[in-house]
This record gives sequence, structure tokens and C-alpha cells, in this order.
Amino acid sequence: MKFCCQCGASVELRIPAGDTLPRHVCVSCETIHYQNPRMIVGCIPEWDDRILLCKRAIEPRYGLWTVPAGFMENGETTCQGAARETLEEANARVEVGQLYALYNIPHISQVYILFRARLLDLDFSAGAETLEVGLFAQDEVPWDQLAFATVRRTLTQYFRDRGNGEYRFHTGTIEPVRKP
Amino acid sequence: MKFCCQCGASVELRIPAGDTLPRHVCVSCETIHYQNPRMIVGCIPEWDDRILLCKRAIEPRYGLWTVPAGFMENGETTCQGAARETLEEANARVEVGQLYALYNIPHISQVYILFRARLLDLDFSAGAETLEVGLFAQDEVPWDQLAFATVRRTLTQYFRDRGNGEYRFHTGTIEPVRKP
Repeated sequence: MKFCCQCGASVELRIPAGDTLPRHVCVSCETIHYQNPRMIVGCIPEWDDRILLCKRAIEPRYGLWTVPAGFMENGETTCQGAARETLEEANARVEVGQLYALYNIPHISQVYILFRARLLDLDFSAGAETLEVGLFAQDEVPWDQLAFATVRRTLTQYFRDRGNGEYRFHTGTIEPVRKP
Repeated sequence: MKFCCQCGASVELRIPAGDTLPRHVCVSCETIHYQNPRMIVGCIPEWDDRILLCKRAIEPRYGLWTVPAGFMENGETTCQGAARETLEEANARVEVGQLYALYNIPHISQVYILFRARLLDLDFSAGAETLEVGLFAQDEVPWDQLAFATVRRTLTQYFRDRGNGEYRFHTGTIEPVRKP
């Protein structure tokens, strides 16, 4: 951030009075521009013993598989966001159910919020940001072609929970991948 | 938003190609400025049968009582944010425990995330944004002087859960107060 979005003057990075962290503050109108983490909302759409996955048509991770999820929008609930993303990415209608996982990803200032969901019909297809949509049983999931650590972790727990006959809520923190 | 924070030129509200919602887009450098909901993170600090509450020294709801909570910051986890807010508002150290509640507040584009927490010692005091800090048993809570609907709802459920001997996770949507 270089300019104030309110008045167009320059901003400087400083700790405002009464605050503890540096913020972008306008040198002219003195507006403080806070920056906060964003939420990714999505779901695991279920149809009998299979779940719906999407093959990404966009970067990052073009061509890899994920659950439908994306940035939560202003004015919606987490559940509404999860259903909207599923409609956008897979043209699929779901009834959103229990909160299933909340992962912190502090190094990119994101929180990942995933629900279980009931797929309402089989009339799904690839949305604009998706190459392909499919239903996968546990042994059909493309485990070596999953797009994100959050997806791998969530689906591993999901099928373990299913095996145990009880879906528990999962939470944790995703650390950055350390390259050798 | 009137100006691009990247280049200082004007922004216009339009639906970018491939998008479905109007965004602030720079007329010069074409940066798309997304706006997303923010998270409020906090906790219910517990000490035996009492919980810690803070009397607000800031608007909104100056002079009314709340649990320690505030805007989540970039680079932290939800738990770290809850502990930081408790330290800032009540100079209190907590061990953050289970996720207790997640409330959507779509009309102000916020998501409220609350944990249970164990207060580690009694060496607490009012922080800069707090007039007074205290420990309250259920019948001592200032029920008619609580700051927010989320706080009232959470504490009502909390003491009901305690009575039932089981703390369940709670989620829901807070609607705007309709003035007559």
C-alpha cells in the first residue's frame, strides 16, 4: 500500500497512538488502513460414499484437485459462502451441514473454514475456474494430485472419521512448506 | 474507496471479467481491490466457576461489559489472536482451549470466533481500552449491561452448557437489531 484509498495522498507505515502494531496511515487525512486476515470458505459435498472434488483451471495449482472453496465475500455467512463457491466452481447445489474444520494459515494470513455438505443432485459440471468435476470414493481420490496441504489434511481426517463412524471437528495450523 | 492504494489513481466500481460481483478497480493500473469480511477473535477466560469480563473504555458500547475479543491481525492464528486480545484488554494470561462459538454477522461483514480459555493467574487489570476487569459467577454477570448480542448469546449458552455438564460448539447468524 502506497496511497490512501480515501484521499489519494501518500501513506506511511507507523504505529498509531494507542496501537501496538505498525499500520499504513495517511499523511494527509490520517486515515488508518488496517489489514486483516481473510477467510477461505468451502465444503466437502457428499453423495453416498463419494465426495465431490474440482480440478483447478486457475493458478495457483492449475490442474490439481481440491474441494470447492474460495474467499468469503462481504455480506454473506460462512455457510452461504461455502454454498456459493460450490455453485460457482462445480455448478453444484448443496445443503451445508456441520462445521468440519478450521485451519489457521498465519504465514499467508488466511483462515480456512470447511463444512460438510449434502450434494442435492448429480447435475453438476465444471464452472469457469474448474477443468473437471467428479465424485470420488476414498480409494478413488487422486491423493498425489491434491492442490493444497489443507485439502490433503482435511480429506485424510474425513475418511478416518468416516471409518470411525463419527465426524469430529478438526482445527490446527498449517505451516509453510520448507524447501530444502 | 475512491483511490487506488497502489498507484493513487481513481477507482471505479465495476464487475471485472470472470467475476460476478462489483469491485473497486483502478482506472489506471487496473488493480482489483477486493474487500472481505473480518474476524473478531476472543475467549471466555475461566477461573473455577467464574469467568472474566471487561468493561469497555471505548466506543461502541462504552461502559458495557464484554468478553475479551477484537480484530484478528495478519500473521497470527485465531488462538493467538484470542490470547493477544485478552492480554491487551485485561492484562490477563490465558491458555486457549476449544473453539466454543462461531457467529456470522453478515450485515457488518464480520465473523465472531470465540474459544474457551483457562485463566492462568489472578494478576489481571484493565488494559488501555478497558475501564474495569472482573470475575463473575453466573448470577453475578451484569446481564442487562452486556455490550453485544454475540456476548449475551454466547454467555447464555455457556452457562446452560455448564449446567448440562457438556460444552458444545455453537454457531449461528446474528441479525441486525430492528429498531421500531
